[in-house]
Amino acid sequence: MDDTNITNAQRAKVLIQALPYIREYNGKIVVVKYGGNAMVNDELKRAVMGDIALLALIGVKVVLIHGGGPEITELMQKIGKKPEFAGGLRVTDRETAEIVQMVLAGKINKGLVSLINNMGGRAIGLSGMDCHLIEAKRYDERLGYVGEIVSVNAGPILDLLEKGYIPVISTVGCDREENVYNINADTAAARIAGTLKAESFISMTDTEGIKRDMNDPASLVSVVQVSEAQRLLREGVIQGGMIPKVECCIEAIRRGVKKVFIIDGRVPHSILIEVLTDEGMGTMFC
Amino acid sequence: MDDTNITNAQRAKVLIQALPYIREYNGKIVVVKYGGNAMVNDELKRAVMGDIALLALIGVKVVLIHGGGPEITELMQKIGKKPEFAGGLRVTDRETAEIVQMVLAGKINKGLVSLINNMGGRAIGLSGMDCHLIEAKRYDERLGYVGEIVSVNAGPILDLLEKGYIPVISTVGCDREENVYNINADTAAARIAGTLKAESFISMTDTEGIKRDMNDPASLVSVVQVSEAQRLLREGVIQGGMIPKVECCIEAIRRGVKKVFIIDGRVPHSILIEVLTDEGMGTMFC
Amino acid sequence: MDDTNITNAQRAKVLIQALPYIREYNGKIVVVKYGGNAMVNDELKRAVMGDIALLALIGVKVVLIHGGGPEITELMQKIGKKPEFAGGLRVTDRETAEIVQMVLAGKINKGLVSLINNMGGRAIGLSGMDCHLIEAKRYDERLGYVGEIVSVNAGPILDLLEKGYIPVISTVGCDREENVYNINADTAAARIAGTLKAESFISMTDTEGIKRDMNDPASLVSVVQVSEAQRLLREGVIQGGMIPKVECCIEAIRRGVKKVFIIDGRVPHSILIEVLTDEGMGTMFC
Amino acid sequence: MDDTNITNAQRAKVLIQALPYIREYNGKIVVVKYGGNAMVNDELKRAVMGDIALLALIGVKVVLIHGGGPEITELMQKIGKKPEFAGGLRVTDRETAEIVQMVLAGKINKGLVSLINNMGGRAIGLSGMDCHLIEAKRYDERLGYVGEIVSVNAGPILDLLEKGYIPVISTVGCDREENVYNINADTAAARIAGTLKAESFISMTDTEGIKRDMNDPASLVSVVQVSEAQRLLREGVIQGGMIPKVECCIEAIRRGVKKVFIIDGRVPHSILIEVLTDEGMGTMFC
Amino acid sequence: MDDTNITNAQRAKVLIQALPYIREYNGKIVVVKYGGNAMVNDELKRAVMGDIALLALIGVKVVLIHGGGPEITELMQKIGKKPEFAGGLRVTDRETAEIVQMVLAGKINKGLVSLINNMGGRAIGLSGMDCHLIEAKRYDERLGYVGEIVSVNAGPILDLLEKGYIPVISTVGCDREENVYNINADTAAARIAGTLKAESFISMTDTEGIKRDMNDPASLVSVVQVSEAQRLLREGVIQGGMIPKVECCIEAIRRGVKKVFIIDGRVPHSILIEVLTDEGMGTMFC
Amino acid sequence: MDDTNITNAQRAKVLIQALPYIREYNGKIVVVKYGGNAMVNDELKRAVMGDIALLALIGVKVVLIHGGGPEITELMQKIGKKPEFAGGLRVTDRETAEIVQMVLAGKINKGLVSLINNMGGRAIGLSGMDCHLIEAKRYDERLGYVGEIVSVNAGPILDLLEKGYIPVISTVGCDREENVYNINADTAAARIAGTLKAESFISMTDTEGIKRDMNDPASLVSVVQVSEAQRLLREGVIQGGMIPKVECCIEAIRRGVKKVFIIDGRVPHSILIEVLTDEGMGTMFC
Repeated sequence: MDDTNITNAQRAKVLIQALPYIREYNGKIVVVKYGGNAMVNDELKRAVMGDIALLALIGVKVVLIHGGGPEITELMQKIGKKPEFAGGLRVTDRETAEIVQMVLAGKINKGLVSLINNMGGRAIGLSGMDCHLIEAKRYDERLGYVGEIVSVNAGPILDLLEKGYIPVISTVGCDREENVYNINADTAAARIAGTLKAESFISMTDTEGIKRDMNDPASLVSVVQVSEAQRLLREGVIQGGMIPKVECCIEAIRRGVKKVFIIDGRVPHSILIEVLTDEGMGTMFC
Repeated sequence: MDDTNITNAQRAKVLIQALPYIREYNGKIVVVKYGGNAMVNDELKRAVMGDIALLALIGVKVVLIHGGGPEITELMQKIGKKPEFAGGLRVTDRETAEIVQMVLAGKINKGLVSLINNMGGRAIGLSGMDCHLIEAKRYDERLGYVGEIVSVNAGPILDLLEKGYIPVISTVGCDREENVYNINADTAAARIAGTLKAESFISMTDTEGIKRDMNDPASLVSVVQVSEAQRLLREGVIQGGMIPKVECCIEAIRRGVKKVFIIDGRVPHSILIEVLTDEGMGTMFC
Repeated sequence: MDDTNITNAQRAKVLIQALPYIREYNGKIVVVKYGGNAMVNDELKRAVMGDIALLALIGVKVVLIHGGGPEITELMQKIGKKPEFAGGLRVTDRETAEIVQMVLAGKINKGLVSLINNMGGRAIGLSGMDCHLIEAKRYDERLGYVGEIVSVNAGPILDLLEKGYIPVISTVGCDREENVYNINADTAAARIAGTLKAESFISMTDTEGIKRDMNDPASLVSVVQVSEAQRLLREGVIQGGMIPKVECCIEAIRRGVKKVFIIDGRVPHSILIEVLTDEGMGTMFC
Repeated sequence: MDDTNITNAQRAKVLIQALPYIREYNGKIVVVKYGGNAMVNDELKRAVMGDIALLALIGVKVVLIHGGGPEITELMQKIGKKPEFAGGLRVTDRETAEIVQMVLAGKINKGLVSLINNMGGRAIGLSGMDCHLIEAKRYDERLGYVGEIVSVNAGPILDLLEKGYIPVISTVGCDREENVYNINADTAAARIAGTLKAESFISMTDTEGIKRDMNDPASLVSVVQVSEAQRLLREGVIQGGMIPKVECCIEAIRRGVKKVFIIDGRVPHSILIEVLTDEGMGTMFC
Repeated sequence: MDDTNITNAQRAKVLIQALPYIREYNGKIVVVKYGGNAMVNDELKRAVMGDIALLALIGVKVVLIHGGGPEITELMQKIGKKPEFAGGLRVTDRETAEIVQMVLAGKINKGLVSLINNMGGRAIGLSGMDCHLIEAKRYDERLGYVGEIVSVNAGPILDLLEKGYIPVISTVGCDREENVYNINADTAAARIAGTLKAESFISMTDTEGIKRDMNDPASLVSVVQVSEAQRLLREGVIQGGMIPKVECCIEAIRRGVKKVFIIDGRVPHSILIEVLTDEGMGTMFC
Repeated sequence: MDDTNITNAQRAKVLIQALPYIREYNGKIVVVKYGGNAMVNDELKRAVMGDIALLALIGVKVVLIHGGGPEITELMQKIGKKPEFAGGLRVTDRETAEIVQMVLAGKINKGLVSLINNMGGRAIGLSGMDCHLIEAKRYDERLGYVGEIVSVNAGPILDLLEKGYIPVISTVGCDREENVYNINADTAAARIAGTLKAESFISMTDTEGIKRDMNDPASLVSVVQVSEAQRLLREGVIQGGMIPKVECCIEAIRRGVKKVFIIDGRVPHSILIEVLTDEGMGTMFC
């Protein structure tokens, strides 16, 4: 059925059925880690930004956090610099750090901000360099400016939320000596959600959620306890790119976030569906 | 199509399509005059109260104003008192005024408040007697305590809106000598909307709106200018119970309300459809 | 001596002698349970409402709580419904609950509000149905909608006090399924005073206070400790209608109210005399 | 009749009869010029300070302004300095200005402050030197540091009133070169009342008010229009020390004070009688 | 004389001599257009950022606005894109606009923010894309995304200033269709200063100021009236790069900025010298 | 080197070097006990008041506390009253207490306030009699009105600081019976600093600080621990007038002040040097 066939009577019912969910999240902080396919596909991207603008408008305090690996690689290639990886992490010399900063804080961040604003939101873009939002130090000398978070300054985020803005944050870290760090966005998002004592942390991925059998969508785990998730990690059921995502979700729970979700960013409006309907998408941690 | 067949993907689309309307009304005052069939039919009543709760939750400052003629008559009959009318107005002796007060401020008002609260709103019931909200004087000596509005005290309404409550107002007036007045709810609603400089005033009726031919639904006038409405009144196109309703709408426009609507209260969720969709229900005054 | 013989010099002295009491109660919450003769006698009623308006004006945060048994019975009789009692409590079927609601929240509440306003106060009438102020459940299945308090929502009371209004509360309770409950006003008043952590709770009765010998006014107990009051209850010294009143006073003390008084509502301006003079009227609990 | 014979019932009536006056002045600014006998007689002084404390406590924003000629002369005599006058004004050399400062801002001001505080008020003493409250220049070179007011800085007075304090102001002026000026207290009080746009300005004198015949108390003028007062000045009906007082009252009216009174400071509690009873003491300007 | 030879006694004197200037600018908005040599030379850059941090700390509301031409060219060259100019303006195709965005909003903006923060300031970086700060449209179709300012949204700047942050703004414009515009920083700075009704607008250049004879430093004009500046423009005395700068200063005056300065950015701490000493650096417009 | 030879470039460097100190004290409370030579020498006095005005302007919350022994003696002599001392304390009869009040609260306090205001500060003078700031009782019957502090009311001081004023406090105490007390200024200052939980307490003396050998300036102790200071007192190294000063510093530390300094009031701008430079003047307690 096409949505153009939905009558206004049905529209009204849909809206009214969202009421208990709107009520539940009213005035609460929801941190969204944005990434993966939803960041590459233009239509999905617009859908996500629309979701963010809508949630903010109906009284949810939304914080959007993003990385942007593929576009960093793209600019590096344009200027003829070969990306190098060690242990899955990008070796980040000073020039690379500068590229990371330009792409994340300049291109992607402001692009997302602009999209949200044009959809009726009031977004302001921040990076970890603004007001020492993310202070970092070297994670491993061999990796150069790959950063490990030292501290998160929640002040500016709370100030913007209080004034009714949607903070959009690129995970570029800084220290007290003008160095710039490439920070893993999942880690930063979980840490920020924890520092803000968010009601909810939503991690967008390119999977349906945690599955007991990677090849069987029916094996999706709707609700998982932290201890269970840790067991699935230990036993190797959770694999590959899902490992750090699950670890961040566990970390978010540990730091006091009330509800943590891994949702499928490939489904349009998956955030709205998760927050405003009775459908439990993906996997919820508790 | 049953709304149970609507997928969550469609729900999300419906919600996102409401975004521009939500944005338009965010933080604005909308005064709803509630009456007619929507007040008698229990299902319609619940639908309206749900609409009110939802609008308040997504940031609209809703004020609900109600009368309640049929229930007044009902209680009078129960206690063996014969209703009397003169020129279409209820002759109101002191005992009748007391009955009006009990039914409007006691039974109906608190019943509506309770419904809204149970649907997730935060409603507080007021009458024109609270903090001199509606000061009145006798309209015509022969009618007894039928009141003409002297002044409206917007203070308590604005105070409740500021604190996030939904004011539900029964139109019982008072004066400085302990007299109680039966006030026409349409007139009071238009006057209150004007005093509040409301963004929008919505009058619920039991018709589709203004029709050029009462028997032809296709003759519905979607948008009418005040001068045009006055001409339709003069020429007798607008008849019967619609005359005072249209007059109140004109009065609301004259007192500075930006958008004034007559909508069909017999359609479930007609308020939501008017406010949150692109469907122009009923007749809009401009 | 008639008060018209009091010179202005004497008036000034009287005012100045009230200064330490005004100072003591400035900005403090005083909950008054209004009832008995003071509610029936018109002159006494006006005196009480004047007292309330005056206290509010000089900076006391007054909350007035009332029931209204006799008028409920009166309306029931008018509509030919026979009041039924079981164990001293009114058997309350749905129709009776509706009558209770109309009489308390509609007639009495708004009448008191109107009187206070005309005496210079700024009163707003609430019922237990407004914003779930008094949530209740059935006390005893056989009694129908006689309610036992589940919880008190102090929020709206505090919001009104902050904005400078005098909340006048009728003790009609509600639940989450649209049921309406008849709540004992003494119990509700003591509970609300406790929830508000009031400085003072004043219960108006038709006696001088607790007497060791019911027939000897000279046996009045000016100050009573909770343990002593409990002993007097056990030993049957306190009898009849005074039993529940004394129990509520003990409950108020237990819930953290600082000063609790039973005063004689038959004496004009007994509230002012209690609060603003050195005369200890009635019985004080400590 | 002694006030000890007043019963508490009578006390309550007196209090309740003050209600309309309390209501009228609630939240309004009343500036009192304190002087004359009421400053010399210890009992009268205590009565005035009690009046001030009471008015502040019941919500009036009181500002007390005082001079203190006799005590200045007294200290001058103690240190063997001969007071000199020219045209009715004290010739004020630098040493005299210092004495004025010590007596007004040190002795009298803090003494009054202390009395008010001990009667339950919250007073803070200011002089015209605090935060450039009263900027002055020389009035006449021959008189030395006798000051003419250049400007009044209402900021600190309003800040103290907002925080709930009673500002008590000694009329010592200053300029930008460390000079100290002796300022006429009547003039300063009228000017300050005007700058504050006070509701009321009360000037305490040692007379009953304006009289058409100085020797006939019955010739007291209860209400006088500014034009009439000016005529009485021109015609010499108003004489001696009353001339500047009347001129200041006219000036206060001209600067926007709503109600201006000359009252008899020799009557105990004359301020309370004027403000809180129906007795029109002295002369009111309009 | 080396500053290390300055004694602490002298330091104290210097600080105390700055007092009248600190007082003059306390709580006032100062907009600084940062550019030229001060942006290229690392030592000068640190000096400017220190000046900004200091001014903010002593109570000045500083807004820093920057462009960044040379670094845009540098990145273009790195990725092998040839800069093209027409009529002195950079022809900006979509790819160039993206580069402008990355360099200004990503690299330079966050770099400055980081420097200020490490010097004790609390800076947050904004671009014209955040919350529609700078809405633009095409200036000339042939130039591509070179933008002309349509409107400035002062809201977010004022919100950040109120919360105590230093807004650092890169002049990248946006429209409602996701287009990004390259905006002249001088024009944007003057416009923003005007919209904010700034106390002062300081434009940093690589000259001493307006000179009557370009080759004679002694011909520096310290104070120039707008009409005089316009004459100097007309007569060709002002030449080359100074023309647009002078035009922007005139525009700032016209839009209500009180004091406008062109200062020499090549002199270390020229901002502090201009604001906190008696030395009138460069040219002041009035 | 004369400070007139300092170039503006050097001035800018001096200012910028003060930045870390300004940042450290921003928004913090600093209590200064003013006395000794700095109070007698007119040039030093102006320097101190300038320091106070400057610190307040750059965001430090300064509270100035003063006594004034010599001027009390001077006025006593003028009126022919012989000062009497017992155990180093002034025997204070009622007349002497009045003189203390006039000199401290009238002459010195308002003089300092005036000086600060003329240097750009916004000072308001208080005494211990304002709003019961310093409540006292007799220290020793034989000494008359020499007061021992009973309690400090920090409310008015914090209210003035919040509103941006500089409180200047004379240490005249009061009780609830109109008595006035002569309070030791060092003791009062330490006590007030403790009650305010000040960041810093600075005691101005006529020595360089604590010295191990009174005659050897080189034996100055820059930093002293409380236990060490107590030992120096016990062993008699600290002698004469320094004993009570050191005891007050220890008391301030004990009551929670973070940093306590004894500085040399004979050095011009010693406060600024202590607070805004790297020079550790005098002795710091920790």
